[in-house]
Amino acid sequence: MRNTWEYFSTENIIFGNGAITRLDGALKRLKAKNVFVITDRGVAQAGILAKVTEQLDLHGYQTVVYDKAIPEPPIESVVEAYEFAKSQMKTDVIIGLGGGSSIDLAKVVALLMEYGGHPTDYFGGENLVPGPIAPLIAIPTTAGTGSEVTSVAVVTDTENNIKVGISDNFLRPAVALLDPELTVGLPPYVTACSGIDALSHAVEAYTAKDFRYIQSKEKLLFQGSLPITDALALQAIELIAGNLAVAVQQGSNLEARGNMLLGSLLAGLAFSNAGTALAHALAYPIGGKAKSPHGELTGLLLPYVMKYNTATEQDKMVKIAQAFGIEQGSKTTREYAEAASEAVLQLLKDINLPTKLSEIGVKEEDLESIAEKALPIERLVRNNPRVPNQASLVELLKQAY
Amino acid sequence: MRNTWEYFSTENIIFGNGAITRLDGALKRLKAKNVFVITDRGVAQAGILAKVTEQLDLHGYQTVVYDKAIPEPPIESVVEAYEFAKSQMKTDVIIGLGGGSSIDLAKVVALLMEYGGHPTDYFGGENLVPGPIAPLIAIPTTAGTGSEVTSVAVVTDTENNIKVGISDNFLRPAVALLDPELTVGLPPYVTACSGIDALSHAVEAYTAKDFRYIQSKEKLLFQGSLPITDALALQAIELIAGNLAVAVQQGSNLEARGNMLLGSLLAGLAFSNAGTALAHALAYPIGGKAKSPHGELTGLLLPYVMKYNTATEQDKMVKIAQAFGIEQGSKTTREYAEAASEAVLQLLKDINLPTKLSEIGVKEEDLESIAEKALPIERLVRNNPRVPNQASLVELLKQAY
Repeated sequence: MRNTWEYFSTENIIFGNGAITRLDGALKRLKAKNVFVITDRGVAQAGILAKVTEQLDLHGYQTVVYDKAIPEPPIESVVEAYEFAKSQMKTDVIIGLGGGSSIDLAKVVALLMEYGGHPTDYFGGENLVPGPIAPLIAIPTTAGTGSEVTSVAVVTDTENNIKVGISDNFLRPAVALLDPELTVGLPPYVTACSGIDALSHAVEAYTAKDFRYIQSKEKLLFQGSLPITDALALQAIELIAGNLAVAVQQGSNLEARGNMLLGSLLAGLAFSNAGTALAHALAYPIGGKAKSPHGELTGLLLPYVMKYNTATEQDKMVKIAQAFGIEQGSKTTREYAEAASEAVLQLLKDINLPTKLSEIGVKEEDLESIAEKALPIERLVRNNPRVPNQASLVELLKQAY
Repeated sequence: MRNTWEYFSTENIIFGNGAITRLDGALKRLKAKNVFVITDRGVAQAGILAKVTEQLDLHGYQTVVYDKAIPEPPIESVVEAYEFAKSQMKTDVIIGLGGGSSIDLAKVVALLMEYGGHPTDYFGGENLVPGPIAPLIAIPTTAGTGSEVTSVAVVTDTENNIKVGISDNFLRPAVALLDPELTVGLPPYVTACSGIDALSHAVEAYTAKDFRYIQSKEKLLFQGSLPITDALALQAIELIAGNLAVAVQQGSNLEARGNMLLGSLLAGLAFSNAGTALAHALAYPIGGKAKSPHGELTGLLLPYVMKYNTATEQDKMVKIAQAFGIEQGSKTTREYAEAASEAVLQLLKDINLPTKLSEIGVKEEDLESIAEKALPIERLVRNNPRVPNQASLVELLKQAY
């Protein structure tokens, strides 16, 4: 049994409509004069970058913009951004503006700015990041990844054609600045995929195995369910359950957008300490076979994984059902707990996302190998409250097929 | 209406039985070799200091101990501790070990170590702390003040005979290390006073006026109730409601001690961003007239203030009643909400604390002047959900008399 847990948090979170006007205060607190902004073309074209540079100009900062971030940035793209940043006279603070990919890229650039080297120097192992990275302000433009407060950056190793994570608590941005007004223009499908991604983070963190019973002697980045992450994750579930469908159907509903951004933030704080579990482990091998975005995959798997876990996490599933506004009525406790997974399945339908693996191009004969490849992903599988094996995983995948 | 809020957190929280053995990891992360420990004689005599120095010796740190911290440290005592720290060869990290006073003293010493000057240079005003203080690890030995994660240090201005706060988000310790085993020896009365202090923090943060409706144009340290502090505060209330009486009556019940320490931590994270309200405002003038410790005063006032606030915070009072395990039964919603204040009153009785101002030496003729002196404490009074005036405050105090 493990007796202790450790919780890391972004030190400063700024939230609300118009929060972008508080960027100056955050920069002053970091004593910045020269700012390097990392973003992507889409964010620039949507006029969101202009809202940020307008603030920077207004308050007299020297600003350089790199707007060539691309999804799941390949190593060469990271090196390019870093070389460009290095070629500038001086950078005091880096701003990562965009979806998870822009923020992840900004994290790695902030790491290289402080310690030099090549991205591959920091892949995989523990304790490879020597200390705090360069000061980073993360400004998300989607409500989903939670990257603005997490300890992970995902890049693509194009040579070996795999996604690689750099994970270290030193990678957390110094400041997360969240302004719901920046997210109102997101199209329904992107809103749905990123929002259900946040729900997957929250549910998997909340129902992860209790940290005391995670079997490992090592110091873990993903520790299982902690008392403090439980509080954050449950509130995230309630916010997402009540607001995702509205945010998808009514893009300009600022209240729903705000609640989704808050839900995604709280889910990020939770899962970056507790970790995620089986839905994320299964999404890896399926990701190689389907073209779906990450959120669509984990979202599709989530209700089936929840059902699979119901017996061992009955109390927490009941709390999730309650967060979805479901009352017990004449249900037995077990039925009440199962209502949680049914509510997530209904939510998928309400936001027009696929609910079956057969809809996204997975073939039935692949299910065995998907289960086989998911099982060894130790850092996620050990977090699952029910110990999976090949036979029960294939059965789960058949349910989801 | 205010649209944005800001949340600050201690970056690294380590929690659990035996967490003290993880001190080495925390120090390594801060790249420390020379450690300056600030504590008090009581902690040293109880053998708790030895548990800390044992860890430091085991892992080869150069350690200097200052064990002369005293409650609500006078300015001269702060200066003495600072001069002693300065006279050492080198200090990389300061450890504050003890109750709120030792940790508060360590905060001010860490501030002076980084920026020099005199404590009075930092009194009162905003933005007087220029930047991050010297790296500080706070190790609480009581479950109450939450000082291990807060932005405030209280010292005593002996010349003017008043308590003075230095408040700045830069004052938060870099690391909070909480080991319930360090608190098992606390006597019942100290356990009761510090535990009810934590409950006051949690309830006043949770029921504080919504941040949107706090009337001030300024950037506030205490911002009113925020979505993120609500989640933390409610869990704190549940933990304290379920464990304080057991911790008081069964000092060696490690599970109750752990839950109290966790509740106190979550309450600290909540109130250091949301602020407290009327019970704390009233405690100031009463503190000049009664010899009770701070926690006994705010705890005594809490149920009366909750009752006073019931009409404007009905929904949250119901949640508090639920956190105390009370079911609605045949109660009206208003009655259910009032059950929250009754539960706190019962808890005071269960832990042998006074429930009436007349029991602690306050005189009936003082009530008018207590109300008068509490009303201008703007940073606390503006947080209260019901706007107090002289007549209604005197009525409240008469109820509590």
